[in-house]
Amino acid sequence: MPEFNHVTVTKAANIYFDGQVTSRTLTFADGSRKTLGIMQPGEFEFGTQAAELMEILSGELDVRLPGEDGWRRVRGGESFEVPADSKFSVRVLTLTDYCCSFLS
Amino acid sequence: MPEFNHVTVTKAANIYFDGQVTSRTLTFADGSRKTLGIMQPGEFEFGTQAAELMEILSGELDVRLPGEDGWRRVRGGESFEVPADSKFSVRVLTLTDYCCSFLS
Repeated sequence: MPEFNHVTVTKAANIYFDGQVTSRTLTFADGSRKTLGIMQPGEFEFGTQAAELMEILSGELDVRLPGEDGWRRVRGGESFEVPADSKFSVRVLTLTDYCCSFLS
Repeated sequence: MPEFNHVTVTKAANIYFDGQVTSRTLTFADGSRKTLGIMQPGEFEFGTQAAELMEILSGELDVRLPGEDGWRRVRGGESFEVPADSKFSVRVLTLTDYCCSFLS
């Protein structure tokens, strides 16, 4: 099974939307960060600071990216990028497991 | 913030009860394992193989341990141990963030 080695994990979870979205922060030796998270079914809007690569590990959701009017269906095994300093919305259809990489 | 250093994290989440309980597995250099998890409000029964130390990082739940009739209230900052090869039940009152250590 894919794994991340030699990382630091912050013990406490990141908790958003009353626990409908939660994640753990992983910090790598080079200082870069990723979060591994779970989104419960529902609709959520997020804001980015750094650009983000969102890898969907399992589950199914629709995403509306900044500057796009329509929603895009994303499934496990697929990913999408979000520019820095922008907002994006998701409609989580089934429980979604994700890995978010913060792009410098 | 408390953190775990030099660990290996399995990328995919452990998902139980349709996503009402989810966790990430951390493996340490000495081969020991912990999971960092989230329990949504609800009632769940778990089975252990190895004995477990359950540290409640935040949230509130009632737990019924094997051999005990009553429920015990456990809050963030508190913990409980569960013997190997046994079952225990939880009634999660508020979203609960936990760290489970598998005791050899």
